[in-house]
Amino acid sequence: MTPQERAEQIAAGMLARDAFSQWLGITLFEIAPERAVLTMTVRSEMLNGFGVAHGGIVFSLADSAFAFACNTHGRVTVSIENRVTYPAAVAEGDVLTATAEQEAASNRLSYYKVAVRNQHGALVASFTGTAYKTSKEHS
Amino acid sequence: MTPQERAEQIAAGMLARDAFSQWLGITLFEIAPERAVLTMTVRSEMLNGFGVAHGGIVFSLADSAFAFACNTHGRVTVSIENRVTYPAAVAEGDVLTATAEQEAASNRLSYYKVAVRNQHGALVASFTGTAYKTSKEHS
Amino acid sequence: MTPQERAEQIAAGMLARDAFSQWLGITLFEIAPERAVLTMTVRSEMLNGFGVAHGGIVFSLADSAFAFACNTHGRVTVSIENRVTYPAAVAEGDVLTATAEQEAASNRLSYYKVAVRNQHGALVASFTGTAYKTSKEHS
Amino acid sequence: MTPQERAEQIAAGMLARDAFSQWLGITLFEIAPERAVLTMTVRSEMLNGFGVAHGGIVFSLADSAFAFACNTHGRVTVSIENRVTYPAAVAEGDVLTATAEQEAASNRLSYYKVAVRNQHGALVASFTGTAYKTSKEHS
Repeated sequence: MTPQERAEQIAAGMLARDAFSQWLGITLFEIAPERAVLTMTVRSEMLNGFGVAHGGIVFSLADSAFAFACNTHGRVTVSIENRVTYPAAVAEGDVLTATAEQEAASNRLSYYKVAVRNQHGALVASFTGTAYKTSKEHS
Repeated sequence: MTPQERAEQIAAGMLARDAFSQWLGITLFEIAPERAVLTMTVRSEMLNGFGVAHGGIVFSLADSAFAFACNTHGRVTVSIENRVTYPAAVAEGDVLTATAEQEAASNRLSYYKVAVRNQHGALVASFTGTAYKTSKEHS
Repeated sequence: MTPQERAEQIAAGMLARDAFSQWLGITLFEIAPERAVLTMTVRSEMLNGFGVAHGGIVFSLADSAFAFACNTHGRVTVSIENRVTYPAAVAEGDVLTATAEQEAASNRLSYYKVAVRNQHGALVASFTGTAYKTSKEHS
Repeated sequence: MTPQERAEQIAAGMLARDAFSQWLGITLFEIAPERAVLTMTVRSEMLNGFGVAHGGIVFSLADSAFAFACNTHGRVTVSIENRVTYPAAVAEGDVLTATAEQEAASNRLSYYKVAVRNQHGALVASFTGTAYKTSKEHS
């Protein structure tokens, strides 16, 4: 299996078992080693009391992109820490695209950034994540 | 109305209009000026591909606690930035309690921390948030 | 004055009055509206107890790049929050380059990222910053 | 040696070899397992172009407190990630106290918070840090 095929297999398997990402309606748009692009559409049940998407919704999309991307190399990898900002609000019906890319990595740690953009290309969340690579291989 | 009554009124109103916090099953356990304690129980549809709670679930609970707490003073206040760590995994059936407290504030900005603990008292997420206070008053 | 000339004037003025950036030996390599590239060389007095650059040194370089970049538009702008990771250690004699770029902005807030690389091009720090734009203009 | 004696020995040794913390004028006020309290006084050479302490100065004090505290258990421990906010400005002559405390830990990772206060007790920085515990013991 090539690294690309392995990345696709791992990400597809992760999404298939990920109940919350399915509830979010996440689609795998692109997967490559250490990279993931996901999309989803914001529904009414994802809004907060101000009538815009709950911060946790945008965060969750970014977090799934981060998780799928950082696991593509084959070792089970878990999130340690995340930081997120919200440069623009997100409304019902918005179509969001999260692009996760590795910034750097060592044997045990990897560092990712995720940009979430809406259908007009505006940045709606900037997310960073640190992950810990366990010794366990994905089956 | 006392500051305590105002805080309770604002938080209850925010939760009543917050579709995603309702989907999460969030309960207001305690509200006071610049403080909120929320609880929720983790359901199977909140799990990720590793069979533990999706990071976005724990984040969302903390984010709601942050949002409710930082709005209690009466001005409409929005989240600018959050950071979260995950010291321990969260399983289906776990009962989580998020306690949000203000660390500091100026006229325009406020700084919060949120600790999320499980039913055994273990810290499962440490969350920090920065908020921007608009000039608009809660109705 | 063009926006480029204004950016250069503001950044040069900030550095000229910034005692700690001078102690660090920071040089303005490139300035443009909402962008700054700074360089510095790591000296022995900047090391920590492990014989590598103190985290605060790398942070400070990134923070100066952030401050210079986010002030170039003309309004006095202050840092609200920063996050930094350290993908690789920094040794005495290393020549560091920090590149700060705006990711997004609204009327009151701006969001920056800063990459710090060593003389071999390796990423030694990934820094993000949120800034608040006051109403005061740079003189 | 008791854990307390070991903590004191490690922190004192780290400070003795830490050139930059010495330049900052850092004093160990209190050391205990997984806890450190440091103090320093802000000098004119630590100011930025706005005439207040450079963000990197306050960060560095907090970072040293974090480093000393997270190494007290005996294993060489390195910083992975930090986040800082600045609720209040710091002036020349201010006496700062940084209190670092562990929030949670696993075998490989530890999570700390550091509060930096001035001589009036005001919070001037809220800092969080994640550390990675290597297998190497402090000598």
